[in-house]
Amino acid sequence: MRHPKKHDFPVGQVRRYLEPGPIVLVTSRLKDKANVMTLGWHTILEFSPSLVGLMISSGNHSFRMIRETGECVINLPTTALTDTVVRVGNTSGADIDKFSAFGLTPGEASVVKPPLIRECHACFECRLRDDALVDRYNFFIFEVVKAHAARTPKHPETLHYTGDGVFMVSGKIISRKSLFRPGML
Amino acid sequence: MRHPKKHDFPVGQVRRYLEPGPIVLVTSRLKDKANVMTLGWHTILEFSPSLVGLMISSGNHSFRMIRETGECVINLPTTALTDTVVRVGNTSGADIDKFSAFGLTPGEASVVKPPLIRECHACFECRLRDDALVDRYNFFIFEVVKAHAARTPKHPETLHYTGDGVFMVSGKIISRKSLFRPGML
Repeated sequence: MRHPKKHDFPVGQVRRYLEPGPIVLVTSRLKDKANVMTLGWHTILEFSPSLVGLMISSGNHSFRMIRETGECVINLPTTALTDTVVRVGNTSGADIDKFSAFGLTPGEASVVKPPLIRECHACFECRLRDDALVDRYNFFIFEVVKAHAARTPKHPETLHYTGDGVFMVSGKIISRKSLFRPGML
Repeated sequence: MRHPKKHDFPVGQVRRYLEPGPIVLVTSRLKDKANVMTLGWHTILEFSPSLVGLMISSGNHSFRMIRETGECVINLPTTALTDTVVRVGNTSGADIDKFSAFGLTPGEASVVKPPLIRECHACFECRLRDDALVDRYNFFIFEVVKAHAARTPKHPETLHYTGDGVFMVSGKIISRKSLFRPGML
């Protein structure tokens, strides 16, 4: 499978990829074990610092790894990885090594210890910023401390989950820039 | 403009519409004044109770209205409302009545005081559940207490914001149900 060549991307602009609501693959590492989970419950919270909120259910093997280390990488898969996204979401890192089982290639991150996924279009390295809502809602607030993204395609074909095994694939791109006030862009 | 006929929808299934990450129109009411804002920073947090997190910037006129009343309605617009979504996001309820300015038709909610938007495909009535992160991050956790949705189209054409005046429109629908473990559906 392709390994899109990624370049440094401004951390303040990760909304470009995450605000449209794609399914992401979240990687973690605890000691010598890396893991990956599929996640659809996330939101941008701030541009600067670059904050992202993730709901990581405590039933996931990744939960404890991320809770203990305070680090993860948010990786953006495209439709080239559709079946992998589903398989990752339907297995547990407690049972198998998902990287080798599903042919995902770990890459070294710049700042954090969890691996990048080389098959993904973009990778956002994250450090835990606030765990105030983790006990009550499994809601982690991370700061994106380093971002990597491929330059092409400009609008990668992403997956958006609707439940019940059904995904919406990102569609056409339209601009309404001319209707915006300059300060709102 | 069309007013899609909406029916009761299970509050535990609002992820069906919100998890894919659409831009939404959030309505509020304080005393006799209603307002509406455009919002893209939200996430599902739980099925039951049906919890949704919204980042509502304190610079918005809606912020105080929602903070004081603890209520809002999350309305799901389709591409029939593209220009309206942009106009709502580029004006302030402090200056104009956006409902009359942009031809939006308020409908009566069942449980809360803010209006539904009749032109929208679905409307989710919300009550504030937890404001622990409002002061630090403008992040509100709401419980969806009543949901309404049109039955057709099954997959409405929604808008997903990427920044810079550019939207991704929801595209094709694909199922991978056969790859899921039964308990994961």
